[in-house]
Order: sequence, then C-alpha cells, then structure tokens
Amino acid sequence: MDIIQSVRWTDDGRGVRIIDQRLLPGELVERELRTLGDVRDAIRTLAVRGAPAIGIAGAMGLVAVLSPNEAAGGDVLLADARRVAAEIAATRPTAVNLAWALTRVLRAAESVSGTGAEMLTAMRREATAILNEDRAMCRRIGEHGLSLLHDGARVLTHCNAGALATGGIGTALAPIYLAQERGWTIEVFVDESRPLLQGSRLTAWELQRAGVSVIVLTDGMAASLMREQGIDLCIVGADRIAANGDVANKIGTYSLAIAARYHEVPFYVAAPTSTMDPATATGSEIVIEQRDADEVRRIANVATAPPDICAYNPAFDVTPAALVSAIVTDRGIHRPPYAFGESLGALAGAIGG
Amino acid sequence: MDIIQSVRWTDDGRGVRIIDQRLLPGELVERELRTLGDVRDAIRTLAVRGAPAIGIAGAMGLVAVLSPNEAAGGDVLLADARRVAAEIAATRPTAVNLAWALTRVLRAAESVSGTGAEMLTAMRREATAILNEDRAMCRRIGEHGLSLLHDGARVLTHCNAGALATGGIGTALAPIYLAQERGWTIEVFVDESRPLLQGSRLTAWELQRAGVSVIVLTDGMAASLMREQGIDLCIVGADRIAANGDVANKIGTYSLAIAARYHEVPFYVAAPTSTMDPATATGSEIVIEQRDADEVRRIANVATAPPDICAYNPAFDVTPAALVSAIVTDRGIHRPPYAFGESLGALAGAIGG
Repeated sequence: MDIIQSVRWTDDGRGVRIIDQRLLPGELVERELRTLGDVRDAIRTLAVRGAPAIGIAGAMGLVAVLSPNEAAGGDVLLADARRVAAEIAATRPTAVNLAWALTRVLRAAESVSGTGAEMLTAMRREATAILNEDRAMCRRIGEHGLSLLHDGARVLTHCNAGALATGGIGTALAPIYLAQERGWTIEVFVDESRPLLQGSRLTAWELQRAGVSVIVLTDGMAASLMREQGIDLCIVGADRIAANGDVANKIGTYSLAIAARYHEVPFYVAAPTSTMDPATATGSEIVIEQRDADEVRRIANVATAPPDICAYNPAFDVTPAALVSAIVTDRGIHRPPYAFGESLGALAGAIGG
Repeated sequence: MDIIQSVRWTDDGRGVRIIDQRLLPGELVERELRTLGDVRDAIRTLAVRGAPAIGIAGAMGLVAVLSPNEAAGGDVLLADARRVAAEIAATRPTAVNLAWALTRVLRAAESVSGTGAEMLTAMRREATAILNEDRAMCRRIGEHGLSLLHDGARVLTHCNAGALATGGIGTALAPIYLAQERGWTIEVFVDESRPLLQGSRLTAWELQRAGVSVIVLTDGMAASLMREQGIDLCIVGADRIAANGDVANKIGTYSLAIAARYHEVPFYVAAPTSTMDPATATGSEIVIEQRDADEVRRIANVATAPPDICAYNPAFDVTPAALVSAIVTDRGIHRPPYAFGESLGALAGAIGG
C-alpha cells in the first residue's frame, strides 16, 4: 500500500522534503526546504497543512535552516536557533502545534552544552522524534479505530485528516488505511469540503493513491447519500475537543453529524489525545475564526458569486458531544459521557487544516 | 425595485429576449432568439433554466421561429408549427413544462381555421398568456408566503427558485421580493448550491440587484449558521411534490431540512400548484437522475478532484413531508398532514433547474 508521506528528511538529511499540497490533485510536486524563506513560504502558503504536519515541518525546518552553521560555536548556534524558531513560529501564530514543536527542538539544543555541531545533532534527533512519535500516534489511532470498521464498510469522511495532514497515516483515515492493509474492502465517500476542497482535492487523492475505493460528493449530498444508498459510519478529525466532548472541526462537520444522527449512522471523531483541551469546558468557549469572503465567492480564481456580495465563512464549526458516538484517540476509544479532565496533560496539539 | 425579467418579447414582438444565465454573475448578457437553432441552443445549453422559464421560452420561441412565415397559408403554417414544436420539445425531453407550454401554443393554432397570419396572432396571444399566467402565479405565491415573513426576518434559501427561473418574481423568492417592496428589511442567506452553484451565481445576483441584503455561504455551513447566528425560516422551491407532501428539489435541500428541524427552524416549500403530482403517492416513487461526475470533479473547468475519481451526483433529493412545515402555493398555504389528491388537476409543471 502506497501511503503518501507528507514531510520527511531529504536524502542528505540536511533539508526537509514536503508534498506541495497547493498543487494537488493536479500535480504531485515535492519541494525541498533548506532556507528560512523556504520554510516560512511553505507554511504561510499552505504548501504544507494540517496541524501535526505543520509542527513537524517547522521543527525539521528549523534544523534544516541551521545545518549550514554547524561549524559555529554553541552560543552562536543557540542564538541563531532562537531567532530562526521565532521567525518560523510567527508565520502561523495560531498554530499551537508549530510553537510546541519548535520549543521542543530549542529545548533539545539548550540541553547540550557543547559545540554547534553537537547541538545540531541533538536538535535533529528531537525533530526526528517528533516525526516518529506522530507516526506512531497515527498508527495507534488506526488500530483503535479499526474495531469500528468491518470488511465491506461504507464510510463517509469530511475534509482531510489523513496522511497529508500528519507525519503518519492520518487520524480519521488511519483506520481506513489499516483496514486496507488487512485486505478489507472499504468504500470511502468523501465530502468535497467547500470552501477549500480538502476532501475532493486531498483526501480523495491520497486514498485513491493507496488503492482505496473512493467516491466524492458535494457537501450538500451527504444526507441524500445516507438516505438513498446507506452509510455504515462517519469518521472525521478534530481541531480541538472540549472537556465535555464538544468537537471543533472543519466547517461542514456539524451538518454531517446532524444528518448522521437523523439517519442513525454512528458518527466518530478520531484525533490525538493532544487535541483534547481540558481548559475548554465546552464548545461554546471556542472562538470561531471567520475567513476571507473570497474563499466562498471564488473557486481557484473563478468567480462563483457576485464579487462584492457578503459571505459567511467560518473556518470550523462545533459539533456538540451529544452527536458524537465515540472519540478515537491514540489511547483508546472514548464513549459518552465524555469528561476529558486535566489528567490529559498540557500538550495542546491539534489536527486540521 | 429592479427585479430581473428572465424571458420577454423583443421590442418588435417577433423574437424572444432571454438573460444568458451561463454568464452570471460575471456578465449580464441578453440574447435574442429568432431561429430554431437559437431557441434549441438556449434551452440545451441552460442559457435559460428553471422549468417555468424554459416552458415560456419554448412557447414564445415557437412563435418567434414561425414569425417570418406569416404570409404562409394556415395549413402550411400549422404543419411547420408542429414540426418546430417537436424539435424544440426534443431539446429537453424530460422538461414537462416545455412540452406542456408548446402543446398549449399548438392548440391555439389549431383552434384557428384561417390564414397563417391569423394563426400566428393566436399563437402569440397564447404564448403571452402563458408568460402572464406565470407572472400572476408567482405574485400569488409571494402574497401567500408574505404571511410567513416579518420585518427583520433572517431567511435561508437554496438553489434558485427566483425570477431567473420563472416568468415572474420566482416562487421561493417571491415572498422576499414582496417584503422588500413593502420596505421590510429582510436578510437572505443563500446556500451556494454545489455542484452547479445556482445559489451563489444566480440567487445572490438577482436578489442583490433588487436591493435585497444577501449573504452567501457554502452548503456545509448552513447548520453552523443556524446554531451560531440564528435563522428565522428556510424557504426553497420544488421540482415535484408527491401527494403525501414529500418534496423533490435541488440536491442539498434535504440536508438543509434536517438541519432546520434539528434547530427548530421552520422549513417552507414554495411552488406552483402544478408542481404537485397527485399520481406520485410518495417521494419514494420519484426516480432520482444521476448527473455527470465532472460536475462534482470540476468547477468552471478547474479540476477540484482527481480526474478519474468516482462521484455521487444526484440532481435532486427528496425531503420527506415530515420535515416540511408548510407548502406555499398560488392557492394558499398548505400545512401537514398533506394530501394533494387528484382534485389538483393534471397540469404537471415543475420549477427547478
């Protein structure tokens, strides 16, 4: 099975290779990031997207940018590392995973009192660890989630919570990849996920590439599909999960969850434990970002509405816990009533994009 | 208030002027239809769309095509009329309104035993009557529907059941236009209505032009809008209404109706009495047309999915009567339980497109 790897080291280990997701599904182009400009551009323009993938690309990118400086003394390299990390973090200030991953790599450097080369080795090891931990986390989500599928299952998903969004095999898509690995026949229906079309552009592409049977549909068709053709389950990712189990995820998730409930289709959320935010009691505390109206008024530079019309364009929506049948994490399957307390720790990561 | 008129006679009364809806919202271009090729092309390419508008354009187009033949004898003209009517009807064989309108104009010709010129006069009168009846029907729907609105109402609609789809001020949009005429402030939220975007391209355009406050959103955002910002009511058109009140309408309508029910938002359908089909007992008898996968895989010639991916693309969906708060027709407001029996007569028209 050929699952795309969205972020990895270049062959010489001194640069980062990413899939340029802006060009999918039309073209598969890999880019090498070696300079600060490369790394910032890739993150800023969404060539790399999905919270875990951004964090990994940022951490590995920090190492790549500093690699030419390995002859420097430790103090100089550490000062450079702090400056570069701050500049990478500023590219997407709201990306919690990015700041978290950069901080981990900086701490690894700080823990070494040695030469620049020794510091770089520690930083490279830490960035690689972040990548590998993410890969392992995806796989564990997949293993837990597999128990919710069966051979022949018809699954509906939304947006992209797949390999392209993570260092590994994704979150919502991880159980699907493992089912495919087992030789099960799984049919995956993918909402296109307007406005940015991550479903039809990215999820359809990566699943098809791995040999999974894919059918795309527009977001307004999901309810009709459930009624006319039947769906066994829905599974989606999450940007943030409140302590009571309310789920913030890509806009359109809530609509899907309501339709699933109406048709008595199980609605599952798959996300790393770090997506749970014990500090957020309920979804009503989550501030919903409004994005540029042109995302709704245009598609790929084609006007699809009058140019000066108002648009409603929230980046995500909140699905109340009451509509969520179960939440699959790397630690297991959680069922209602949800109570994600402080014990979960403070790693405030997120998947989305 | 400047409500667009989608189909009308040319100034010399010998041709049909239509708005070319393929170019909206980018350009407002009117086309004159005078030859059989003009009329067939306009209908075939969806330059004119919406069942009532297609019927009217076909009926008036038949007269336009025959106008140069007015010196012919009655028999010759009648034979020509039958041939031309058959060719126009064959352009969209499933358009019930088109066949019905052409038949009315042919019968008007048959009722005259006189010269070609006399027949043409009768045909022109009949085509004009079809247009005027449609205008009056829209207005009556608007008057009945107005009782469901109030000054300050926030209304959500889907697809285009407006002036562009009819000879008059539309069906679902008719109450909104009359509210605007009264000086009420109405905010209209418009689903873009993928795949063909009739909401963002056409409904947003015609309402904005008439000075109505419009906000567009993608189809997956409607549930979020209801939850976060509140909506007073939904109102949509219908392609066909079964005897039990089940409603076939543009794909995405059903999803919207489910979300409305979940949020306790009234969900109204507005349609001419002719849309009711007493011969169809329930919605389950309605065969749902699957359209070309490229409508989902592309937007305006831009690929939005892998080119060879499968797509689910039903033209419409069926909303069960249980989700419909009321049906507004030119004869009044019907509330559940619905029972549209044979008494409604046999005019099997439809609005949609």
